[in-house]
Amino acid sequence: LSTLASIGEWAIIEHLKKELSSHHSQVLCAIGDDASVSKQSGAYSLVTTDLLQEGVHFERSWAPWDHVGYKALQVNFSDIAAMGGRPCYYWLSLSLPKTFLMDDLQGLITGLKRAAHEENVICLGGDTNRSPQGAIINVVVQGLAGKRVLYRHGAQVGDDLYVTGSLGEAALGLKILQANRVGLLPTKKGKNYCLRQTKPRARAMLGQRLADNDCVHAMIDVSDGLASDLDHLLKASQLGAKIYLDALKYKKSFGELCKQYQVLPMDLMICGGEDYELLFAASPGEDTFLAKLSRDTKVPITKIGRLIQERHCHFIDGSGKSISFSKKGYEHFH
Amino acid sequence: LSTLASIGEWAIIEHLKKELSSHHSQVLCAIGDDASVSKQSGAYSLVTTDLLQEGVHFERSWAPWDHVGYKALQVNFSDIAAMGGRPCYYWLSLSLPKTFLMDDLQGLITGLKRAAHEENVICLGGDTNRSPQGAIINVVVQGLAGKRVLYRHGAQVGDDLYVTGSLGEAALGLKILQANRVGLLPTKKGKNYCLRQTKPRARAMLGQRLADNDCVHAMIDVSDGLASDLDHLLKASQLGAKIYLDALKYKKSFGELCKQYQVLPMDLMICGGEDYELLFAASPGEDTFLAKLSRDTKVPITKIGRLIQERHCHFIDGSGKSISFSKKGYEHFH
Repeated sequence: LSTLASIGEWAIIEHLKKELSSHHSQVLCAIGDDASVSKQSGAYSLVTTDLLQEGVHFERSWAPWDHVGYKALQVNFSDIAAMGGRPCYYWLSLSLPKTFLMDDLQGLITGLKRAAHEENVICLGGDTNRSPQGAIINVVVQGLAGKRVLYRHGAQVGDDLYVTGSLGEAALGLKILQANRVGLLPTKKGKNYCLRQTKPRARAMLGQRLADNDCVHAMIDVSDGLASDLDHLLKASQLGAKIYLDALKYKKSFGELCKQYQVLPMDLMICGGEDYELLFAASPGEDTFLAKLSRDTKVPITKIGRLIQERHCHFIDGSGKSISFSKKGYEHFH
Repeated sequence: LSTLASIGEWAIIEHLKKELSSHHSQVLCAIGDDASVSKQSGAYSLVTTDLLQEGVHFERSWAPWDHVGYKALQVNFSDIAAMGGRPCYYWLSLSLPKTFLMDDLQGLITGLKRAAHEENVICLGGDTNRSPQGAIINVVVQGLAGKRVLYRHGAQVGDDLYVTGSLGEAALGLKILQANRVGLLPTKKGKNYCLRQTKPRARAMLGQRLADNDCVHAMIDVSDGLASDLDHLLKASQLGAKIYLDALKYKKSFGELCKQYQVLPMDLMICGGEDYELLFAASPGEDTFLAKLSRDTKVPITKIGRLIQERHCHFIDGSGKSISFSKKGYEHFH
């Protein structure tokens, strides 16, 4: 008898998609993108959901509870941003142990309220339960999109590939937090990377601005790691890519800490998850527009590669050599 | 330091409501009814969410996994029905142990598909995770309402109170299942009551038909037990009620099994949860209309009491004596 572990997360998602999908004239996208898209009286309704579990997605020793509340909303905002939408409403299912402290619940609430306030999103309801073990937080966010929705599909041969912000920092934070549990206290520098892991902020505004411009053809958020999420975008667009590793810069402290925690910077940048950055394909020659957008929103936008016809992803180093990466993002059931 | 157990579920929900509610011109109802209500380009969007956890809401020894999948959708359909809406879309967050069998996942899918197909509801997406312990299924359903939405508030003095179907049967089923775990096999008769617990069907069509008629003023679904849900409706409507216990009939087999499992029928009917029936207030003199609706939909509709000004709920027995019930529905954190 086969178990979920023997089948693997991606095959399970494919199976669920095949079994549960159906067609409907008002539905533009069901399972298989960052959020679902349905037409509701003229507007596009975008909906996404993410479940965070203590012991799987976070440990209570890592950060105060307001980080958990903040993150529970932001990971969903990131999905809405990746479709080019504006988050509007959320619903919250909480399952907490009987022994959970009211002070910690207040922490959770504070984090939720802060994230909601920043993006002008309001809570419309939820469900409260007792959990036999750790805390479980499921958040659903509904967003609305104006004239354009950006999908994973739609990238074109010759498009440039861009990524926002910096990659691998949340994965480095995770390394530091995990080491911390066995007694190695993070330095002050390390703390900023831990914050990228425990309290990420989605590129909510930037996602909407990118969707406003016709030169952007496809987008996804980087939540499973660049290699994995790029693979999703390429599969959906039925294309391949060349990624120039030289384009992926990192801070000095990032390099130093990678050395200290015995990880290769490129491994974290290519395979590390939870950065909640945006990866998008745009027509070539849009550097001026994107540089201006980067200045306006104060978010770095880096060109990292190019879309090609051949359906393979080449990671090319400074000497022109093709490098392969073994780990393709976080896999839940292994 | 106070814990959730010391505060209690209802106080926690009130606290969350106070902390997380905010006003918005497009939002007609956020936290505090069976579903949220927002205006979206003219239509009313109703959204509800329910989280089911193995070991809290169900045990895997009780029923095949298709019952769990079926129930996960039906409990949400019941909330949409209680607002007078039609369920349209759903999103699914699954968290399952690594050792979960693919055959059991297929069972879950079968149950979800059956429930979705019955109400013409389609799956728009979700999230898949590994659970460190038991299975967790969070479902969000979006429904749409036509010209009228029914709330818990809105009942008027002199309105008659009605309940659909039969009460206490799911609670009797739970008793039987719990006894079964310690070796007492349910009889064939008992199995029908177990099905009310493991595979309930919401009053989806009836809820919409009731909302179509102006004589119905307020509605709620009976999920926590009559005493508890009636209390919600009365508080929201700022009224009290007289309930005539004589009106609450039960089947002969229900009485016999209550005796066998050493519970009082009235306790289950008044305080037992998970019946997913509808409780509503309608103008007096609508018996003919409601009798016809009952015949059309093949669902019994029983008049059980009357709304009064005095803000208290009187349960009155055949001799005119007021009875009190100690247990006010299911309380999660005790």
